[in-house]
Amino acid sequence: MSTQVIVLNGGSSSGKSGIVRCLKAILPQPWINMGVDDLIDRLPPSLLDSDSGVAFGQGGEVVLGDDWRALETAWTKGVAAMARAGARIIIDDVFLGGRTDQERLRGHLEGLDVLWVGVRCDPETASGREIARGNRVPGMAVLQAETVHKGVVYDVEVDTTRTETLDCSRAIARHVS
Amino acid sequence: MSTQVIVLNGGSSSGKSGIVRCLKAILPQPWINMGVDDLIDRLPPSLLDSDSGVAFGQGGEVVLGDDWRALETAWTKGVAAMARAGARIIIDDVFLGGRTDQERLRGHLEGLDVLWVGVRCDPETASGREIARGNRVPGMAVLQAETVHKGVVYDVEVDTTRTETLDCSRAIARHVS
Amino acid sequence: MSTQVIVLNGGSSSGKSGIVRCLKAILPQPWINMGVDDLIDRLPPSLLDSDSGVAFGQGGEVVLGDDWRALETAWTKGVAAMARAGARIIIDDVFLGGRTDQERLRGHLEGLDVLWVGVRCDPETASGREIARGNRVPGMAVLQAETVHKGVVYDVEVDTTRTETLDCSRAIARHVS
Amino acid sequence: MSTQVIVLNGGSSSGKSGIVRCLKAILPQPWINMGVDDLIDRLPPSLLDSDSGVAFGQGGEVVLGDDWRALETAWTKGVAAMARAGARIIIDDVFLGGRTDQERLRGHLEGLDVLWVGVRCDPETASGREIARGNRVPGMAVLQAETVHKGVVYDVEVDTTRTETLDCSRAIARHVS
Repeated sequence: MSTQVIVLNGGSSSGKSGIVRCLKAILPQPWINMGVDDLIDRLPPSLLDSDSGVAFGQGGEVVLGDDWRALETAWTKGVAAMARAGARIIIDDVFLGGRTDQERLRGHLEGLDVLWVGVRCDPETASGREIARGNRVPGMAVLQAETVHKGVVYDVEVDTTRTETLDCSRAIARHVS
Repeated sequence: MSTQVIVLNGGSSSGKSGIVRCLKAILPQPWINMGVDDLIDRLPPSLLDSDSGVAFGQGGEVVLGDDWRALETAWTKGVAAMARAGARIIIDDVFLGGRTDQERLRGHLEGLDVLWVGVRCDPETASGREIARGNRVPGMAVLQAETVHKGVVYDVEVDTTRTETLDCSRAIARHVS
Repeated sequence: MSTQVIVLNGGSSSGKSGIVRCLKAILPQPWINMGVDDLIDRLPPSLLDSDSGVAFGQGGEVVLGDDWRALETAWTKGVAAMARAGARIIIDDVFLGGRTDQERLRGHLEGLDVLWVGVRCDPETASGREIARGNRVPGMAVLQAETVHKGVVYDVEVDTTRTETLDCSRAIARHVS
Repeated sequence: MSTQVIVLNGGSSSGKSGIVRCLKAILPQPWINMGVDDLIDRLPPSLLDSDSGVAFGQGGEVVLGDDWRALETAWTKGVAAMARAGARIIIDDVFLGGRTDQERLRGHLEGLDVLWVGVRCDPETASGREIARGNRVPGMAVLQAETVHKGVVYDVEVDTTRTETLDCSRAIARHVS
């Protein structure tokens, strides 16, 4: 059976987006990405900086409200349906709730062949890259670097601290069947 | 029963994206958008400017290959699944095949309460706006302006030629239940 | 003598950027744009949302501090030097201080052949377009629509309320020598 | 005397943009950036993919025409004038002509206190990062990695191959007076 979904989990500025672009370039089959940021990018104004939607604190903390959770559930069911209909999907996510988030996502992806990938990065390094990106809330990288991996089980883990994005992606690609 | 999906169909530079942003701002419930451009934006390099994926001719013509069609079908099934799971979705599309494309999309959206919206714009005006946008293949606006509406049946039609985007959006919003 | 600088002055969402893109596409000579937004885009973090730099109020008001003013003066002198060295420059600006701002800019551009262009838009229409753009502080369009033209003298004025961007641009282009 | 201009020279995907963002964040004074890409971004359509302007070959080679050279000269004179008027400027450039380009730029910056910085990156690593960025012409990174440094003299050199962007930026910042 061949891989239908690749889930990348890692904190902010850990390097997920670069890995997504590399995977799409080097994998022989066509893959598309549908990440949590893609949903945030298309939220209506009423759910941005809102208690019921998504709010970003000054220290980099992320607060998720009920409307966000309902929407995210529907979104994820749809992404799973895309995969069941034959689209190869890379989900790049940030498991703010660690293992609980993985269990919920695993439920939505039931029956699909999923490759679970942990994208790690040393908090200090991620924090430096957050500054170099210049468009992220400062503090988010450090806050998320370790908590997002708590209790999460992976098929493969990469660490972008000292390994180039393309090399991390090649390591992941070797597990894609 | 309340509207679950809004489908906007119109040619390139007819003003769909502005209407999408207005609808998300003025509709009382949270709506997210999932359009054909969103799928194009996430295609892997191998499907861009490719016979099997999506290719743009120098005169503005769009050529769609088999891999694109397979992916688009899976994508659309997923979008329908999002709507069935409770997300309110605005699909902005370009029915290059006119009525045939509507019939196919109608099939994917079966059982959902859909508002079909035609977004028209005079070809010459759309062509001028294409120049003002500066990031579209010149010629696309004229080529698509009328063909995308051939045989398509709408619940409501708007014309951005002489009506502001926000006013068009308000006219559409009155049909959203 | 031929036009060396085109100054476009108009409120937020009056349509300046579209006119800039059209002018660059239709004018026979190569023109480049250097507007106030281009300087804002390259400010260091310390001057954004800062009393000494540029701050945006919740109602759309813009507050400019001393460091901003010093930097803007140096920037404008440099833009004038580019024009004196032979680059054709379109400056799109927002004269928050009306006539005073024009006089200051006129001083920097001394000796250059400048075409002064007023870009007008009905406040209500500009406000609607602000919503359709979706990435501007709401309220700015209405606040600026008329004040930026106070006491300003133009060579040509266009009004985007009922005239398409490309047609406005053609009207301006007829004054470029 | 304090540094008025920082010139960063390095090949495509060597990491200049990240260093620019870090420098703007960590330097105590306000700095703005005016690089060669900023000029390319504002070229009129007639100078893009054009023999007289800038053209990118399929293998990543860059061809510069006469209109480009004239415009770049005027642009650079203007940037120098900004610095002379008190703006602190970071110029990020790609010396396709190596030493010759440095000599020409040195001429334009005469009288200014300039810090010359070489940004190096191993060609293979830069090539991998080019894939991870996903928006560059493949091949450019390798072609430029070494040639842009030929005969160029620096005050400080950094190598992003194994040093983080923020650390490279701190090393540069120590030379800024």
